Amino acid sequence: MEIKKAIITAAGPAQRTLPLQTLVDRDGVTKTALRILIEEVRAAGIEEICVVTCPGDPPAYAAAAGDPGGRLRFIAQPAPRGYGHAVWCAREFAGESPFLLLVGDHLYVSGGRKRAAQQLVEIAGAENCAVSAVQATHESKLPYYGAVGGRRVAGRKGQYEIAEVMEKPTPTEAEQRLIVPGLRAGYYLCFFGMHVLTPAVMSLLSAEVERNAGPNLPLSPALAQLAQRERYLAGELEGRRYDIGVRYGLLTAQLALALAGQDREEVLSGLVELLARREMK
Amino acid sequence: MEIKKAIITAAGPAQRTLPLQTLVDRDGVTKTALRILIEEVRAAGIEEICVVTCPGDPPAYAAAAGDPGGRLRFIAQPAPRGYGHAVWCAREFAGESPFLLLVGDHLYVSGGRKRAAQQLVEIAGAENCAVSAVQATHESKLPYYGAVGGRRVAGRKGQYEIAEVMEKPTPTEAEQRLIVPGLRAGYYLCFFGMHVLTPAVMSLLSAEVERNAGPNLPLSPALAQLAQRERYLAGELEGRRYDIGVRYGLLTAQLALALAGQDREEVLSGLVELLARREMK
Repeated sequence: MEIKKAIITAAGPAQRTLPLQTLVDRDGVTKTALRILIEEVRAAGIEEICVVTCPGDPPAYAAAAGDPGGRLRFIAQPAPRGYGHAVWCAREFAGESPFLLLVGDHLYVSGGRKRAAQQLVEIAGAENCAVSAVQATHESKLPYYGAVGGRRVAGRKGQYEIAEVMEKPTPTEAEQRLIVPGLRAGYYLCFFGMHVLTPAVMSLLSAEVERNAGPNLPLSPALAQLAQRERYLAGELEGRRYDIGVRYGLLTAQLALALAGQDREEVLSGLVELLARREMK
Repeated sequence: MEIKKAIITAAGPAQRTLPLQTLVDRDGVTKTALRILIEEVRAAGIEEICVVTCPGDPPAYAAAAGDPGGRLRFIAQPAPRGYGHAVWCAREFAGESPFLLLVGDHLYVSGGRKRAAQQLVEIAGAENCAVSAVQATHESKLPYYGAVGGRRVAGRKGQYEIAEVMEKPTPTEAEQRLIVPGLRAGYYLCFFGMHVLTPAVMSLLSAEVERNAGPNLPLSPALAQLAQRERYLAGELEGRRYDIGVRYGLLTAQLALALAGQDREEVLSGLVELLARREMK
């Protein structure tokens, strides 16, 4: 399976300005978060990118993307109806192809190794199925994430066959349905904000949109159904994700980029100087 | 002299997205740089604020300003013609009133003391004249700033009567015309990006605009003329300014805000955790 398309969602009313924030990337170049994400996608060998935005946002986003040299297009989510609905807005873009799916309010830092999107795309290509990036997450953080249950794939480190998907499960629900043998007690596999999905997901979302005219269509129910229909893996990636929408999220992401990049020494000495200046007062 | 109006310039093509960047302020609230600046102005007792922008930017700026509860208005600089020209675009807003002038790409952090704008406005009010904030700056940084020469005001710590203003002087020019008795050798008083100016500046700029149809009208020549016409002071303020337009400028400003604010301990421990995580790999 070859992944040639990517969808980036950035239509959440609270998140819409996040991809426009600027940071200094690992290479020392100042870029918007959107451009950093686009480069993550392109480093995975993907040129066709669709960004789902709020209506009216594409001009600012096109400016923020700079010249990605690829084929960037924009689709508006007419009203905020949840993450699943935002993905579904790009169904014509995806067509009958598998696609990489990223959220516009996270950045990924993978040290000197392959970037996260590339790792994920390589797993999906090799295994020929949908794969969601996950990370082992303490149960105290279950209210923030979708989580999966399943079993380890024999002979594949950090890969799991997904049997269950639940959106923001309670600890009791998680304990009953999402325990994964081999994880530390109290830890579950939560979504990392990055997936490779198959066209079946768009069909499942279409059915969901027909059924549910409500204001919030999450993605997880479609993924739960996907797990019943197709082989669907979870993969732990080398790297960390940074939610730039939380308090100090941009600061933390910027520091993580800087400490993983060429300006590491410069930024560390700047930090020391700033701390010393405060303390000397 | 009572200062009731403020002008914030944000029309430089390279700077136009900077006021839209978000940071967590000293009070722990996530705000745009523009909103932090507006609060700086309002803390100085000023409600009438005019922001000079590029054409087309006011909607994004109005959104970024949130609800300042004041009287925010926008004026477009039709084409990028320099800082002096941008200030002159707000001449009708200023009318016959003195005004506080801030640049939209700097933030000011003054620890627990009075905020920088308030300090400046109080000096101007007490001395009844124009005052530019300055800081002693090493001659190696003269290429980046406007600089002033003059003499200390007797009995007033950190206040100077301005005799000369030069834009980005060479070290030789500075040595010949800008030496201020009492500063460390090799240091000059450079602008801090914050002024209280009198209506005479708008007249001087109008004359300059008539004379000079060129692409770059700096502010400094008008200030140099002001010094010949009126009593015009320079004041060193308690606090530091952070240029958010330079590489890692946002990072440094964010850290300075955090270390001066209520989240100091949280951010310090986050820093330690992030550094430890990198080193343990």
